[in-house]
Amino acid sequence: MKLIVAIIRPEKLADVKRALFQVGVTGMTLSRVSGHGGERDVVQQYRGESVVLEFHEKVRIEMACSEEFVERTIDAICEGARTGDVGDGKIFVLPLDHTVRIRTGERDNHAL
Amino acid sequence: MKLIVAIIRPEKLADVKRALFQVGVTGMTLSRVSGHGGERDVVQQYRGESVVLEFHEKVRIEMACSEEFVERTIDAICEGARTGDVGDGKIFVLPLDHTVRIRTGERDNHAL
Amino acid sequence: MKLIVAIIRPEKLADVKRALFQVGVTGMTLSRVSGHGGERDVVQQYRGESVVLEFHEKVRIEMACSEEFVERTIDAICEGARTGDVGDGKIFVLPLDHTVRIRTGERDNHAL
Ligand SMILES: Nc1ncnc2c1ncn2[C@@H]1O[C@H](COP(=O)(O)OP(=O)(O)OP(=O)(O)O)[C@@H](O)[C@H]1O
Ligand SMILES: Nc1ncnc2c1ncn2[C@@H]1O[C@H](COP(=O)(O)OP(=O)(O)OP(=O)(O)O)[C@@H](O)[C@H]1O
Ligand SMILES: Nc1ncnc2c1ncn2[C@@H]1O[C@H](COP(=O)(O)OP(=O)(O)OP(=O)(O)O)[C@@H](O)[C@H]1O
Ligand SMILES: [Mg+2]
Ligand SMILES: [Mg+2]
Ligand SMILES: [Mg+2]
Repeated sequence: MKLIVAIIRPEKLADVKRALFQVGVTGMTLSRVSGHGGERDVVQQYRGESVVLEFHEKVRIEMACSEEFVERTIDAICEGARTGDVGDGKIFVLPLDHTVRIRTGERDNHAL
Repeated sequence: MKLIVAIIRPEKLADVKRALFQVGVTGMTLSRVSGHGGERDVVQQYRGESVVLEFHEKVRIEMACSEEFVERTIDAICEGARTGDVGDGKIFVLPLDHTVRIRTGERDNHAL
Repeated sequence: MKLIVAIIRPEKLADVKRALFQVGVTGMTLSRVSGHGGERDVVQQYRGESVVLEFHEKVRIEMACSEEFVERTIDAICEGARTGDVGDGKIFVLPLDHTVRIRTGERDNHAL
């Protein structure tokens, strides 16, 4: 199992949800975050302590899924989230040892 | 070490905290999230783009612990969070390479 | 690659950002969280159900980076976040299988 974490633009959330549901991913957890994404050029225009980098509002989506769902989940997120402009977001795939459904105590693939 | 992430009902947070403290887990980080949990039946009642799935307010708890604490932590969360109705929540166990206590620089099991 | 998660004092965020930019870490995601950090002594002054533990406002920073950046990132966070008083925060280092830049589809070290 993997835990997929995606940071996307808030205005693309509806499109990303729709793309995820279409490939069968429905379990997900969302939070509002604030992010900065690797704009090193901006940094180099300034010097030392006067650097003030902008942070943008983003949505963080966390989804546990089985290995076989990883690639289609990544594709669905990219399809829903992409505009082509810088700042479209990032996806992180983390190893996941165990999942538990609290209501039943079911574990791992039975709990997804 | 493992990082345990639990998504629970906000109204069960006090019970979960109490159950965690009773087994000796006190270090934890909480955030407010919004979630949807695998209700695929709902999806199939609708078609295409008209699907509107409900998201519910949840609390996300993140706890780093040593391997030997994982099972009792899972049990404590389930005991505190379970109502028996759908939507009780999920627990995810992730591998954790390192922990650092910022004040002292202590690492790993000394930092838990 | 690793995903570094740091929980710090909100009042040290500007110092931590500055320290991170100075070592070249610019991609990061921030959220507001609430935390309790292992103050077991407090627990022992009370009994049973009357325990009320304080939670403090913290900032959670999430940064994906390559292996070679892990130690300097930890050092920068500690340098920016440390006051010497209890509650300075914690750093967690998690294994990270994949990173994707949504705009381009680039993966892993090319996406950092
Ligand atoms: N290395 C990283 N670690 C953690 N979060 C990141 C990282 N890089 C980006 N993010 C998060 O993703 C959001 C979007 O990043 P962004 O799309 O700008 O990435 P990028 O690599 O700069 O790609 P682009 O060149 O398309 O802008 C950021 O605001 C931040 O929240
Ligand atoms: N696969 C998942 N990935 C990430 N978060 C999830 C996942 N499944 C559930 N969650 C989170 O947990 C919350 C509660 O999920 P829920 O208890 O409904 O899970 P479930 O598997 O549908 O179990 P039940 O059948 O008891 O409803 C969701 O609102 C969501 O925040
Ligand atoms: N084991 C843990 N799991 C998850 N989050 C933790 C853990 N320990 C601490 N935290 C988070 O880090 C924040 C700061 O913790 P804190 O600095 O008090 O850690 P500590 O180990 O008690 O160190 P100190 O002795 O310096 O107080 C907490 O409020 C909480 O959000
Ligand atoms: Mg960017
Ligand atoms: Mg459910
Ligand atoms: Mg403490």
